[in-house]
Amino acid sequence: MSNFKENLEKYAELAVRVGVNIQQNQNLTINASTEAVDFVRLVVKKAYEAGARNVYVEWHDDVITRTRFELASSDALSDYPEWKAKGLETLAENDGAFMSIISSDPDLLSGIDPKRIALTTKAAGVALTKYRNYLQADKASWTVIAAASKEWAAKVFPDETADKQVEKLWEAIFKTTRIDQEDPVEAWQKHNDNLHEKVKYLNNKRYKKLHYKSTGTDLTIELHHTHTWVGAGSENEKGNFFMANMPTEEVFTVPLRNGVNGVVQSTKPLSYSGNLIDNFSLKFENGRIVSVTAEKGEEVLKQLVETDEGSHYLGEIALVAHDSPISQSGILFYNTLFDENASNHLAIGNGYAFCVEGGKKMSREELEKVGVNSSITHVDFMIGSADMNIDGISEDGSSEAIFKNGTWAF
Amino acid sequence: MSNFKENLEKYAELAVRVGVNIQQNQNLTINASTEAVDFVRLVVKKAYEAGARNVYVEWHDDVITRTRFELASSDALSDYPEWKAKGLETLAENDGAFMSIISSDPDLLSGIDPKRIALTTKAAGVALTKYRNYLQADKASWTVIAAASKEWAAKVFPDETADKQVEKLWEAIFKTTRIDQEDPVEAWQKHNDNLHEKVKYLNNKRYKKLHYKSTGTDLTIELHHTHTWVGAGSENEKGNFFMANMPTEEVFTVPLRNGVNGVVQSTKPLSYSGNLIDNFSLKFENGRIVSVTAEKGEEVLKQLVETDEGSHYLGEIALVAHDSPISQSGILFYNTLFDENASNHLAIGNGYAFCVEGGKKMSREELEKVGVNSSITHVDFMIGSADMNIDGISEDGSSEAIFKNGTWAF
Repeated sequence: MSNFKENLEKYAELAVRVGVNIQQNQNLTINASTEAVDFVRLVVKKAYEAGARNVYVEWHDDVITRTRFELASSDALSDYPEWKAKGLETLAENDGAFMSIISSDPDLLSGIDPKRIALTTKAAGVALTKYRNYLQADKASWTVIAAASKEWAAKVFPDETADKQVEKLWEAIFKTTRIDQEDPVEAWQKHNDNLHEKVKYLNNKRYKKLHYKSTGTDLTIELHHTHTWVGAGSENEKGNFFMANMPTEEVFTVPLRNGVNGVVQSTKPLSYSGNLIDNFSLKFENGRIVSVTAEKGEEVLKQLVETDEGSHYLGEIALVAHDSPISQSGILFYNTLFDENASNHLAIGNGYAFCVEGGKKMSREELEKVGVNSSITHVDFMIGSADMNIDGISEDGSSEAIFKNGTWAF
Repeated sequence: MSNFKENLEKYAELAVRVGVNIQQNQNLTINASTEAVDFVRLVVKKAYEAGARNVYVEWHDDVITRTRFELASSDALSDYPEWKAKGLETLAENDGAFMSIISSDPDLLSGIDPKRIALTTKAAGVALTKYRNYLQADKASWTVIAAASKEWAAKVFPDETADKQVEKLWEAIFKTTRIDQEDPVEAWQKHNDNLHEKVKYLNNKRYKKLHYKSTGTDLTIELHHTHTWVGAGSENEKGNFFMANMPTEEVFTVPLRNGVNGVVQSTKPLSYSGNLIDNFSLKFENGRIVSVTAEKGEEVLKQLVETDEGSHYLGEIALVAHDSPISQSGILFYNTLFDENASNHLAIGNGYAFCVEGGKKMSREELEKVGVNSSITHVDFMIGSADMNIDGISEDGSSEAIFKNGTWAF
């Protein structure tokens, strides 16, 4: 067996056994692109071997997605089949596990009118609200992983030959998901322990506010009085461990909806719905985004902020050392799953229920009342840099460094 | 544009404009294999260009299908997601059109225990009863077409190189679907008129019985007193024309459920659920199959007959000249869509509602009462040969030739 084949098998196995941590007789639903067919076949095999009951693959195809945006009527772009949303809900309600395998071209929808994209994103957001809330409340086990595709690899490694591009992207995926290590399952256990230590430290501190300072950024974010920092592995409703993102290097919580003030500057391009947004800046007053500028993709960014009321507020703050393995790779993946793990980041939109006490059992209305933002969207954007300092400010006004020059201060 | 590309475009266009005859703002659901991704992309584009509202592709993957049969528990093989069946029903109830693009390896499931296959076929049959009845009653427009795949092509042309195999199978598909003709749409119009003439002739005759005679076959089939012969194009509930199969060379109706007596011998192998059944013989008494023998795949055939009570009876009788274009090609396609159009055939299982007067508006119970068979399955098998004679016997006992030496006698 070649090294590549061996790594691919290890990766599929890791996704099944650590990612969703499939249980005996549990159904697994995989969201994947036709581009990734070979890898998906491998994951399906590993899932059955690990005891899955049935593995359902919900395929999509990038070319067909783009064709729809080019040719369907605006009216049609607002359709989302209710029965499909209902199906996902039913699977989640019956202890199903979910795996998304990401491989899309970051430029897939470039040139498409952002308003047309917003119609579809919104329709899906509304239709999938219940399903997405189930996942965000960790009702079911879920994981997001990646598979290299030709188009994505070409974007990441433009100077290589086509074959080499895909090879290098797979290598980068293997490296960042610890597949290159002797025993990836053990490596992930250790990694999980490390991130949980940070989580424990921050949760003990009970900071009232964080203050971010770096070139272009001067931002204060208030935290909920029962906020919980979270990182790496989670537990679903049944108490089964799962790893929602692979890779993951972040430690995160929710901001207080109306407690964000100041200006923040992006430090990496954001690939959103197949379009690139770059060098942008957001200004907040009492939590709300009051102005938006971008060197590239400003219109797309404005559409994102206009998705609904909740997309004017933040739903996540995440800490990642600027010297994390992904950051050190120096690769810009044009993909949030990777790029968010190379940089401190924030997310516009929906806040995680599990980041406040009792949140998993609250309705979205109740969450909003206690200051956790609600939206049909949730989009991460990168703000970390080598010159970023973050202070934690306690109830009594005292301040201490959490981040110094882009990395952990403790 | 190369000849192949041009033909592929013409074929995609024909499937959309004549096959389902897509109407403005109508949804189209395509069932297709990941193997056929390039052709499916083309069909989707043509459908939007022809005015489709949204095109939904329900993908399946042959390798994953086989993996499931190899590794899932028997219990799991009996699962069919209710929400998916409900979704197809909803699409059909809302004027959706349906296209199946067939490309599977005829040997896909060879070696799999037929009992395991039967579990899945049965579960799908039960879950999809309503949806399939909608289609069989022509509530919605639907078409079945084909796309060449490597595995299927290798089976049909075992002596060619891999590239040549696929090329030859596409050529055969283009030829049998009249794509090689100057104006395929016009060619299909003419073909439709020809088959409708046969239909008209037979419907005027009002035969009470057909008597089949050839090597190994001596069979009498009674017809319903309001039976209707049907062929080529159909009309859906809204009166829109569509072509349910491409190619199609048959003229067909339903037998009277309890009116079949004698013995019939197959003349071509039957590819059923990824297994080949060959050289088989069925004996009927008062409509019921009372004995089954097969040189190859006898166990699979027996499982098919045991699917439910209705799978012990016939649901279709179809007439195809032994000198039809597909028959003349001399190619054995190992695929019912093609092989049924090279040969007189019968079908085990469900009978078409639209082949008796008022049938489209009857429930399955009412249809059964008037003598139209009900089953969750419907499987065609070939019985035509160059030495087959078929007589039509009228109410008064008089007899005249319908088929002589394998072809039309009128």
